[in-house]
Amino acid sequence: MLEKNGQEYLRGKRAGPVISPGEFVFSAAHLDHGHIYGMTRALIEAGGTLKSVWDPDPKRRADFLRAFPGTAEARCEEEILDDPEVRLVAGAAVTNERCALGLRVMAAGKDYFTDKAPMTTLSQLDAAREAVRRTGRKYMVYYSERLHVECAVLAGMLIEDGLIGRVLSVSGFGPHRIGGREGRPAWFWRREPSGGILCDIGSHQIEQYLSYAGEEDAGIALARIANYAHPDTPEFDDFGDCALTGKNGTTNYFRVDWFTPDGLRTWGDGRTLILGTKGYIEMRKFIDVAADRAEGNHLFLVNGDGEQKIRAAGVTGFPFFGDLILDCFERTERAMTQEHAFKAAELSIRAQSMAADLTPMAGR
Amino acid sequence: MLEKNGQEYLRGKRAGPVISPGEFVFSAAHLDHGHIYGMTRALIEAGGTLKSVWDPDPKRRADFLRAFPGTAEARCEEEILDDPEVRLVAGAAVTNERCALGLRVMAAGKDYFTDKAPMTTLSQLDAAREAVRRTGRKYMVYYSERLHVECAVLAGMLIEDGLIGRVLSVSGFGPHRIGGREGRPAWFWRREPSGGILCDIGSHQIEQYLSYAGEEDAGIALARIANYAHPDTPEFDDFGDCALTGKNGTTNYFRVDWFTPDGLRTWGDGRTLILGTKGYIEMRKFIDVAADRAEGNHLFLVNGDGEQKIRAAGVTGFPFFGDLILDCFERTERAMTQEHAFKAAELSIRAQSMAADLTPMAGR
Repeated sequence: MLEKNGQEYLRGKRAGPVISPGEFVFSAAHLDHGHIYGMTRALIEAGGTLKSVWDPDPKRRADFLRAFPGTAEARCEEEILDDPEVRLVAGAAVTNERCALGLRVMAAGKDYFTDKAPMTTLSQLDAAREAVRRTGRKYMVYYSERLHVECAVLAGMLIEDGLIGRVLSVSGFGPHRIGGREGRPAWFWRREPSGGILCDIGSHQIEQYLSYAGEEDAGIALARIANYAHPDTPEFDDFGDCALTGKNGTTNYFRVDWFTPDGLRTWGDGRTLILGTKGYIEMRKFIDVAADRAEGNHLFLVNGDGEQKIRAAGVTGFPFFGDLILDCFERTERAMTQEHAFKAAELSIRAQSMAADLTPMAGR
Repeated sequence: MLEKNGQEYLRGKRAGPVISPGEFVFSAAHLDHGHIYGMTRALIEAGGTLKSVWDPDPKRRADFLRAFPGTAEARCEEEILDDPEVRLVAGAAVTNERCALGLRVMAAGKDYFTDKAPMTTLSQLDAAREAVRRTGRKYMVYYSERLHVECAVLAGMLIEDGLIGRVLSVSGFGPHRIGGREGRPAWFWRREPSGGILCDIGSHQIEQYLSYAGEEDAGIALARIANYAHPDTPEFDDFGDCALTGKNGTTNYFRVDWFTPDGLRTWGDGRTLILGTKGYIEMRKFIDVAADRAEGNHLFLVNGDGEQKIRAAGVTGFPFFGDLILDCFERTERAMTQEHAFKAAELSIRAQSMAADLTPMAGR
């Protein structure tokens, strides 16, 4: 039985630096999404050395340099791509430009680490697959809702250790706060650059399902989108849901939306429910609603041994990032297989493109 | 803003007796499912007078008489049907026999109140609709997971009062504990008498969706069943899930299963999540996992005013049953419209009959 405090899963499974300073040099390029900060910090914590940064917008460069002082300010993207010391480029471009950036990065002989969603069309995906085959470089993706949330990391470990038996079904809820219209860039509200809700925040959900259920492929059994309450931005999906059927007969459902109420103490009440033959896991990732403290990282484990609540903060660390650095050195796939990263993207894009739009039925 | 203790929703909205003793006489017939006890108690609490009981099995009759002493033991079903004093017959027959019983009850000029699911085939449904039209009698259904759970009653009141805005999506999880094989009758494990998982426990979920979303009709967008882990009973579905799209563009998803782990302190961790334009509701109906006390009836309300946890036990009572009695007197539809009761049944049956069976994909 798992110790109440989760001690046996405590760090050490690979968190903290995996190499010495200066051994793994990387740069950041294109800072359109704030996720670039989390990506950069996590690589540094895992032992990476941030050398330089580039973005066309001087303000975005300046903000980034304040967060990571001592970083060189490149004069253009090419300066980074031409730097032989740089092994990996981390980027968070506008979603539909992420693939083109990746192609340039891989053509320059470097590995690529992009914010999710990693691309928005199947032709981009084809180009990325082809470039990976040709160059042997990596096109890795920051699926942060599993890789950078400790209760989500712990869930994977508990499943691997058999604590809920064989996984049968994964259900995910990914509500997000939209905030004011002015707080989002113009591309956020448009279909082509953002990719749509199932492609964008849906990609987290699909990646989690494939990972927790151990599925390598799946069919899309249901996909719906809607703009229920944002008539001024008609290309924007404020709601989406989707169901997948895995090749091995497991099931997935997820709902994503932009309806987090103002009164919630965080940006979204993200949940994941994982049903196994011998137990189940619930994650309350970012908040335990109405609990005294507005803190996240709660994992609930129910199996033959009873019910446990485990606060996962500080328990596992984030092994993905150290694994990614080692993978780049050793050309292995500890952190994530290339095919898994691409499959999650493929299914997200397919779900979006086949989704039934409920907006007209809802009277809009 | 709702008072923390929900005082403004406190009883009085119609709970407790609605009529005087002896005014509304009913009987119980066919006790195959234990729900008959909850149905009978609730009718008595609402002011009904239980006169007599019938079941072919003497042991079931004796058990029932112990729970409701002073009840007359009928010698046959006809004795109840022929009793002019009896206005309503409550029954919990084997699922695929519930409709035939209802037809006999209505032909005898009485209203019928059956355990869910109220029928298992569309031809039974056609016969029931026809009989209701012809006799003017009621064919009402004990959808207990909404009607007989106070947090579920409270949720309906909060929605009606606009506390989460317009309802967009309802998600339900209805896990059940299967217990030992010997604890269930033979018909439970077979498809034809039980109706299958989406028809049986799925009917609760569909009824809740129609009710909370205010939808009168819906299409089935997804239906899946599986027997993942019960190879000895191949007709048994241990898993099912389903998605509906409402006529007004709202969405539903639910999962039902028989995988409640031994370590859970109750029979199932039933949840309902209701997303509205201005807030959301979560119900933890029967347990708040890993909380100190193993008690149910928790409602979480999040909207512009903040996050609230409301313990709904003792708050609303169960207005359905008093409303049903008044409806029988006044031929009104306060408790539930006939069409709503039938529509939930219809969609449950359709979902079951079109469900993709994942058992072979899962390697069984």
